[in-house]
Amino acid sequence: MNYYPASIRNLIRQITKLPGIGEKTAERLALHILKMPPRNAEQLAQSIIDVKDRTRSCSRCHAWSDEAVCHICQDASRNKMQLCVVEQPADMVAVEKSGAFQGVYHILGGVLSPMNGIGPDDIRIADLFRRVREEALQEVVIATSTNVEGEATASYLAEQLQSLPIKVTRIASGVPMGGDLKYVDQVTLKRALETRHVF
Amino acid sequence: MNYYPASIRNLIRQITKLPGIGEKTAERLALHILKMPPRNAEQLAQSIIDVKDRTRSCSRCHAWSDEAVCHICQDASRNKMQLCVVEQPADMVAVEKSGAFQGVYHILGGVLSPMNGIGPDDIRIADLFRRVREEALQEVVIATSTNVEGEATASYLAEQLQSLPIKVTRIASGVPMGGDLKYVDQVTLKRALETRHVF
Repeated sequence: MNYYPASIRNLIRQITKLPGIGEKTAERLALHILKMPPRNAEQLAQSIIDVKDRTRSCSRCHAWSDEAVCHICQDASRNKMQLCVVEQPADMVAVEKSGAFQGVYHILGGVLSPMNGIGPDDIRIADLFRRVREEALQEVVIATSTNVEGEATASYLAEQLQSLPIKVTRIASGVPMGGDLKYVDQVTLKRALETRHVF
Repeated sequence: MNYYPASIRNLIRQITKLPGIGEKTAERLALHILKMPPRNAEQLAQSIIDVKDRTRSCSRCHAWSDEAVCHICQDASRNKMQLCVVEQPADMVAVEKSGAFQGVYHILGGVLSPMNGIGPDDIRIADLFRRVREEALQEVVIATSTNVEGEATASYLAEQLQSLPIKVTRIASGVPMGGDLKYVDQVTLKRALETRHVF
């Protein structure tokens, strides 16, 4: 590292802090930035500042947003009667990428995890119930992860919501598309058989 | 990309411009930056600005430097009578990392390349000759690359310097350390045999 002047050393050190970037890659990126036109380097630096300054949480669904209310909550073409509950903003992005959901979202900001001391009051469950009561919802799609905590959170929500005159659904679990049966784990295959459906 | 607000989209776009970083990695890095403490994100952005603002060319050897003269040229413990000629600052860093050279450097800023219209006046050859005349040098080590252009540049420099009362050397070519003879290309092996030396 001492082969470089302090400014380059510092940039390499900052880049190395990013996930999945080792020292060799950081060195390569730093030298690329050094050779960039100054305007491009400024744009890169500014976009880092901007993302921290501008990105906040949507006041309605808690997704990432540049404005008080995110573009999905603002979108008049979205079906406001369907609400998809996810753990994190990145999960919302994953559902959006699938293109299979046209409703709106609610981001819990985590999952129930008694082992880590995270109970219903630590994630946005009260806010979810408020939305269910106040908004004219027809269906709540629970799209938490299919790991232990995600499943437990889904069960908890389904139980709490069952007294309300609303349809509560859970995303399907089963063999991933393009999957080879012999490589699928037994728990997934068991679930796929249990939830089989007629053609 | 439209799944993200504009500020995140812009950061992803800027990161994608870096070499070897695809959209998936850029997305991952952008979301990491989003979650960073604001102070760390500022440091990253500032280090990008700084590297462009502060890093300049050493007035003596043309290596990267934060000051007018780089730390190697300033270092009293370096042997100022040995001068290593390299193509680019990154080559100097490679030689430094080897730990085998204690002299000073001269960065040509390129190689002779008649095909691309790059002649002796387009790289820092006149400046090299000026240093050879003015500085009390004993040896010039030519460490340009061993490709066609690097070899041609080395030959040109050796020819031009031979009239001067100075030792001109070239880094050795041969089988890389840890190399398996059967996987070494023929040109390299030929060179290794031609330049064999006694134990």
